[in-house]
Amino acid sequence: MNKRLPYDAVIFTSLLSKQVKGYLEMSNKMEKLARLQDGFLGMNSVRNTIGITISYWDSLEAIKNWKQKSAHLIAQEKGKSDWYSWYNVKICKVECEFEFEIN
Amino acid sequence: MNKRLPYDAVIFTSLLSKQVKGYLEMSNKMEKLARLQDGFLGMNSVRNTIGITISYWDSLEAIKNWKQKSAHLIAQEKGKSDWYSWYNVKICKVECEFEFEIN
Repeated sequence: MNKRLPYDAVIFTSLLSKQVKGYLEMSNKMEKLARLQDGFLGMNSVRNTIGITISYWDSLEAIKNWKQKSAHLIAQEKGKSDWYSWYNVKICKVECEFEFEIN
Repeated sequence: MNKRLPYDAVIFTSLLSKQVKGYLEMSNKMEKLARLQDGFLGMNSVRNTIGITISYWDSLEAIKNWKQKSAHLIAQEKGKSDWYSWYNVKICKVECEFEFEIN
């Protein structure tokens, strides 16, 4: 991702509870929706014992709009009532970036 | 992690090559070493198709000291010559944080 610096990131770190029915479908749906939001720059997501999802945005306004989107609000509520035993959200400013790729 | 805001983060996103001999041992060794560095605040690491490792630090100086530590420099060289087909490093300022935990 070669975006103009600085840009914004949301680091979402989580632990699932034992109630994960519907989680994967919702997670995939939210990723698709996020990618359609204005100001979305990119996303990486990995889960094994813990999950880390990082989404990148061109402004804090874009993050706020995504957080408040109605379909996303429903997912957040369901996340708290059912799917997550713990999560942590960090809002960050990406200030510097470098990349390596094998020739 | 309830650290005084703002603090600094390094987001390391990577793809492994097919040469992964010695990678896991080095990865574990580097995590142990990082945890001993001055200014280290915490770390989360997950890998499946891609790997995401995020480390948290109390200053950019602490990040720079860790980057330049000799054992870490050797690991970085080996990472580029053998283990990674791609990686991306982002240096971020964590500006806001909130957490949820089930009762």
